[in-house]
Amino acid sequence: MSKLHQSGDFLFKQIYDYVVHRIERKEWKKDEKLPSVRQLAIELNVNRLTVLKAYQLLKKEGIVYVKDKSGYYVLGDIQEHEKASIHKPILSLPQQQNRLSAIHQEKVIYNFSQALIDPNLLPNHFLSDYVKKVFDLYPKVLSTYSTVQGDEELRQLLTDYFVGQYKTYVEADQLLIISGSQQGIQLVAQTFIKPRDYVLIERPSYSAAIDCFRAHGAKLIPIDITPEGYHLQQVEQFMKQYKPRIFYLNPTFHNPTGYTVPPWQRKKLVELAETYRCLLVEDDAYHDIYFDEEPPPPLYTYDSGNTVLYIRSFCKYISPGLRIATMICPVALLQALLTTKSLADNGSPLLNQKIFMHYFSSLRLQQHIEKIRIALQIRKEIMEEELANTGWSWISPKGGLNLWVQLPSYLNTEHLYSQCLKESISFVPGSNCDPTYQSTSSIRLSYSYMNERQIEEGMKRFVHLATK
Amino acid sequence: MSKLHQSGDFLFKQIYDYVVHRIERKEWKKDEKLPSVRQLAIELNVNRLTVLKAYQLLKKEGIVYVKDKSGYYVLGDIQEHEKASIHKPILSLPQQQNRLSAIHQEKVIYNFSQALIDPNLLPNHFLSDYVKKVFDLYPKVLSTYSTVQGDEELRQLLTDYFVGQYKTYVEADQLLIISGSQQGIQLVAQTFIKPRDYVLIERPSYSAAIDCFRAHGAKLIPIDITPEGYHLQQVEQFMKQYKPRIFYLNPTFHNPTGYTVPPWQRKKLVELAETYRCLLVEDDAYHDIYFDEEPPPPLYTYDSGNTVLYIRSFCKYISPGLRIATMICPVALLQALLTTKSLADNGSPLLNQKIFMHYFSSLRLQQHIEKIRIALQIRKEIMEEELANTGWSWISPKGGLNLWVQLPSYLNTEHLYSQCLKESISFVPGSNCDPTYQSTSSIRLSYSYMNERQIEEGMKRFVHLATK
Repeated sequence: MSKLHQSGDFLFKQIYDYVVHRIERKEWKKDEKLPSVRQLAIELNVNRLTVLKAYQLLKKEGIVYVKDKSGYYVLGDIQEHEKASIHKPILSLPQQQNRLSAIHQEKVIYNFSQALIDPNLLPNHFLSDYVKKVFDLYPKVLSTYSTVQGDEELRQLLTDYFVGQYKTYVEADQLLIISGSQQGIQLVAQTFIKPRDYVLIERPSYSAAIDCFRAHGAKLIPIDITPEGYHLQQVEQFMKQYKPRIFYLNPTFHNPTGYTVPPWQRKKLVELAETYRCLLVEDDAYHDIYFDEEPPPPLYTYDSGNTVLYIRSFCKYISPGLRIATMICPVALLQALLTTKSLADNGSPLLNQKIFMHYFSSLRLQQHIEKIRIALQIRKEIMEEELANTGWSWISPKGGLNLWVQLPSYLNTEHLYSQCLKESISFVPGSNCDPTYQSTSSIRLSYSYMNERQIEEGMKRFVHLATK
Repeated sequence: MSKLHQSGDFLFKQIYDYVVHRIERKEWKKDEKLPSVRQLAIELNVNRLTVLKAYQLLKKEGIVYVKDKSGYYVLGDIQEHEKASIHKPILSLPQQQNRLSAIHQEKVIYNFSQALIDPNLLPNHFLSDYVKKVFDLYPKVLSTYSTVQGDEELRQLLTDYFVGQYKTYVEADQLLIISGSQQGIQLVAQTFIKPRDYVLIERPSYSAAIDCFRAHGAKLIPIDITPEGYHLQQVEQFMKQYKPRIFYLNPTFHNPTGYTVPPWQRKKLVELAETYRCLLVEDDAYHDIYFDEEPPPPLYTYDSGNTVLYIRSFCKYISPGLRIATMICPVALLQALLTTKSLADNGSPLLNQKIFMHYFSSLRLQQHIEKIRIALQIRKEIMEEELANTGWSWISPKGGLNLWVQLPSYLNTEHLYSQCLKESISFVPGSNCDPTYQSTSSIRLSYSYMNERQIEEGMKRFVHLATK
């Protein structure tokens, strides 16, 4: 059965198809007896129940019939319309997609598509100690719900961190604890976006954010991002012209390009957004992953509290498995976001919040981040070395997890992607990052998930494939 | 400050309001000096930064001005339009609500509104042992994402459980692991409901489901549920007339009434749904919480795999804090739901899935459920005793966590609710459970969250209040 069964497909549907296929090709003819359930189960090395289920559906579909108790028989030729109601959904299906998630479903040896940190770089042992501590401190943590807004202790801790770090005022009551920054994007889209609303978004941008806003019916207006930031006159013109409800942006070690928007633009952008009543949704997932110097303070620190909604994730470099992130919300928008969060999941799990809190407040964290910065910088440099002789261009990022590489324009990156998959190499084709789904000769290569040897080997293979 | 500061409000906004209020009432007049930041911070027992932030906003709003470095002064009378951009959201806000979640935000001594099991009844110590086991088995569990669909081991375990329990065929590939059944409802609504789609729903029904479908723009058609089940001719007529996309239902120890739909109706309902191409969304959160005998098998077991989407939660009696539940999806709908789940949160945390899995497969679980069944039955009986002499009517439930009690029709249950809150007693007024938001003289009283003494005391107070 191993040949038949592939991940993502369904055993039972495969057996159904197996039988249909044989009948269609007249290998099994009208009134011929099918193998017994027992026989086929042994032959295909599957559970008998699986075969029985397939036979029952075939019977229901009028493809086979039962003769007393002697077994299943072919009824006759199969008409197209008789086939498989199982393939036909009972409802018409929506047009949602998540292209990045589809790429991540591919299992490859050389994974340059995952912008995640190699689990071997994370403090696994140390974290498990913290977990034990959490159970000593909160013996009923698994029997209790968090509040929808998130654990108060954790919100206070993060508030103190933000105030200490950026010297601007935040209240613990403005924080909403979320299950990863992806959830933040989804909550924003669901709370504020109605079909045909305009949304400004960087070009390129984070693929799953593009897909999320589109899933809510938004019309996306691209704002080009360059190493110098945005063309602010263009931003102003679009704000005036389209009256977008939000501008989703990622101004610090931008995903996928690695660019960072300079401080003067941050200030100006907040003023523009205030003037044109456009909510800035700042996604800040890589803030602490810098190589030389700290990036400028987040956009929200330039705001007086009404214009920027800030989504901050720490988990990429602490513990992706915890799925804990936070949003700083304008006071006037908080209640609406809380309602959406309560409808979405009633609040993030308390256990995960408490584990995160104890690790975040530990002295070890700082050491640990230092270690990760160095490890990532080395990996980035190894990747860049392998690209050095290709003639391709990219701007070496000062932080983050990705290289945004421009390949020769004659290369079809979608085609290259399919070729690479066959060789067990993955990356993100640039079209995934384009808000208007246009194809581009740029690609995203993540240097965070593979170790040094894997990067070297994988990149040699990749360059070979792309240049041959 | 304790008087000023109440949970849910914002310190900083309160200081802003405090100053505005005094200026409006001319307690502080034009060109008068405000208390210094330091002074007011001491007076109100808050951080100086909090006061500074409020003063800065007052300045920005043109309500006060700064004279050199000598302090803040009142600019003049406050015009209505000058007040508090902080109160004005930058975006127009949507009409979403979650009335149940709002009730749960009230902190009360006698909580009869939470349909959650008393944390003291849950196996806290035992669970923490399992957590340690999980870390030994999967040392990198916190550094790794789950797949979007959910951990394969857990899906296989649950599949074996379902097949063993109900003798009907399910594939692990049909299961989707979700963060609590609330997330299941939200995923269904977001994937399948577009504004103005019709949805059948029981009357009464689970309040947060009503609010969730409404938030997605659904038009809700109520189907009355009685101790005997549904009026199936009415169901058929509505399916014919409205062509609803889904029927959301809770046929086993129904929330809030406790009724269970009989097997013959389950079978017929699946046939009707198949005929009229209406997806049945079966929410089954209380299945194992029965007092005498096991309830009939879920609706999905009557289906050949295309008509019922089954949402099953175990966490209520295992560990609500884990936020792990599962859905069995029709094959043809799975991909669409996976996309929505990936956009929502990229998959539930692996740690929580692994902890759940190890506890779920332990021998202790069965013993533990027995214990909870008995404890809940006792609590239910105590609550019923307190109601015995009121003359109110209810049908004693054979499982679940709630009594659905009909009060005299002259009682306004919304008004009674406000009175009860003042006495630190909560319950769920029936209007929250009505899909059309109509008021009703019924209420939901949960006997699961309070201990025996608290139920006795709280119910005496409640009955006294309601009958005086």
